[in-house]
Amino acid sequence: MPALDVAGEFETIERLLRPLAHPEWARGLMDDVAVLPSRPGHDLVLTKDAMVEGVHFLPDDPMNTVARKLLRVNLSDLAAKGAEPFGYLLSCFWPERCGWPEREAFAAGLAEDQARFGVALLGGDTVRTPGPASFSLTALGWVSAGAAVSRAGAQVGDLVFVTGAIGDGFLGLRAARGELSLDEVRLAALIDRYRTPTPRLDFAQAIREFATASVDVSDGLAADLGHIAHVSGVGVTLNLNVLPLSAAAQAWFDDRVDAQLSLEDLASGGDDYEIAFTARPRHEEALRREAEKRLVRLTRIGDVTSGAGLTAIHDGRPIEMRRRGWTHG
Amino acid sequence: MPALDVAGEFETIERLLRPLAHPEWARGLMDDVAVLPSRPGHDLVLTKDAMVEGVHFLPDDPMNTVARKLLRVNLSDLAAKGAEPFGYLLSCFWPERCGWPEREAFAAGLAEDQARFGVALLGGDTVRTPGPASFSLTALGWVSAGAAVSRAGAQVGDLVFVTGAIGDGFLGLRAARGELSLDEVRLAALIDRYRTPTPRLDFAQAIREFATASVDVSDGLAADLGHIAHVSGVGVTLNLNVLPLSAAAQAWFDDRVDAQLSLEDLASGGDDYEIAFTARPRHEEALRREAEKRLVRLTRIGDVTSGAGLTAIHDGRPIEMRRRGWTHG
Repeated sequence: MPALDVAGEFETIERLLRPLAHPEWARGLMDDVAVLPSRPGHDLVLTKDAMVEGVHFLPDDPMNTVARKLLRVNLSDLAAKGAEPFGYLLSCFWPERCGWPEREAFAAGLAEDQARFGVALLGGDTVRTPGPASFSLTALGWVSAGAAVSRAGAQVGDLVFVTGAIGDGFLGLRAARGELSLDEVRLAALIDRYRTPTPRLDFAQAIREFATASVDVSDGLAADLGHIAHVSGVGVTLNLNVLPLSAAAQAWFDDRVDAQLSLEDLASGGDDYEIAFTARPRHEEALRREAEKRLVRLTRIGDVTSGAGLTAIHDGRPIEMRRRGWTHG
Repeated sequence: MPALDVAGEFETIERLLRPLAHPEWARGLMDDVAVLPSRPGHDLVLTKDAMVEGVHFLPDDPMNTVARKLLRVNLSDLAAKGAEPFGYLLSCFWPERCGWPEREAFAAGLAEDQARFGVALLGGDTVRTPGPASFSLTALGWVSAGAAVSRAGAQVGDLVFVTGAIGDGFLGLRAARGELSLDEVRLAALIDRYRTPTPRLDFAQAIREFATASVDVSDGLAADLGHIAHVSGVGVTLNLNVLPLSAAAQAWFDDRVDAQLSLEDLASGGDDYEIAFTARPRHEEALRREAEKRLVRLTRIGDVTSGAGLTAIHDGRPIEMRRRGWTHG
């Protein structure tokens, strides 16, 4: 039965999306547009990321978590710039297989994470597609005027940090595909991290205050640090031996034979949505205090040098990584 | 050959999209985000519309005009609110068939219309899809604080107007599909209107100044006026006998046997991207002067009444339209 019959555009908006709408700025989703008042003294930060079934999520990922991941990967971009999100616009491309149950699960996921992260739906549209389920989300946040952190500010002598753990995105995808043999608790933890990564909004203020350059880890830690090095015109070293691992990733790693190759996999797998950033050495103490206060794991993983590009280091020696990240095409 | 090989994400951004980027706010498309300074005294107006190959455009529509239509249908939403556009974010979902030639044509179309309408690319992403070519665009514009026109302000006694001509979107789709028999000049004109509708930005100021409620004609004139009636809590009459037709649409109409059914088709076909709006009678003269000055055709097509919903009128009598518009699912 075609999706057009079971769940039309107007009904989807009326029943599922209107309850998510910003009480004022979204105009009840009745007006094709959102209207935002200006906020003097603040810059508006915007980001837009898309997800496609079979490319960015698995066909059997629950629609509830697909929606939450879509929102979270966009919020992660804002967090890495030090911005505080308040809203988003959404385009849904629904295939026939997505009738009411799938759309309801999707909306329920959005509702849950809207409450968690303090954002509201501002507008967008919903269309049908003969292709795979696809989504595009535009997230909006505020930051004090001039305070948005870029990728371009890393300076020679800075330290390189990353929040949280690296590699769970890479391992979680494999766990969700049934390609990993680990005990069930570990597998569930990895799948959970893959499906619903945590945008580091609780660390956005520290980033805004102390980071000289910052990026969220989506392409792969090595690739994303390479972006910072390139745009800042500096060299960045990444010490693979101190890569922060989750308990599940550590369990996987402990069973590996080739430590270096395994660390390369974790550092290039992407989909972690942690924040990798650079900061002046004199701010390390303040950053650690802030991390402790907010229960955010913070690891110093490298240095900014006068070289060029990224240099990965294993057992004290520079190595040539087979790859640094991946691309969605 | 997979699109991933012939035109990857980074190369597409580097070669094709970066030249379109806003010189300051887009951060060279290097930073995952756009950062906009606040504009005190102004509201920000946002809209987001998607297009799917085979649903919203034809597989053999040139990618150049697909890009321009995508931008224009979004700018049309802003024009109908009285806003002045300045930028947009873009998500491209590329199938394998879209290699460099298709992507270059798409970017060239954007470049042409960016210059025409004074907008610049602010950010977004480009991903691959196993499905049809799909796009989602978020357009942004400024309007003086509090001046954005809604759908909700129509008052009993207002007059109903529409800019330009109605029905070319409906006929143009059929012309592009080879379903119309008209002389070649007419066919070309209709196809052109279907592929590159004109957002009425030159009339946005007049809308802002005089319209009590306003909508762009995308679903179908009757359906869109029905939205205004519903949201404003009034009745709206639409006199089909005075529907403004282009020369090509008039030529098509003159060959029809059933005038009423043909007018219904034109008034419900959608994809016109004209502005339908309501205004106080005392502003009619000023609106006509403004239209004349800007060479915009302006037609009074109905009245706002104390009834409810839309009433279509033909030959002086209320009629029951078979349908009022269409939905994209």
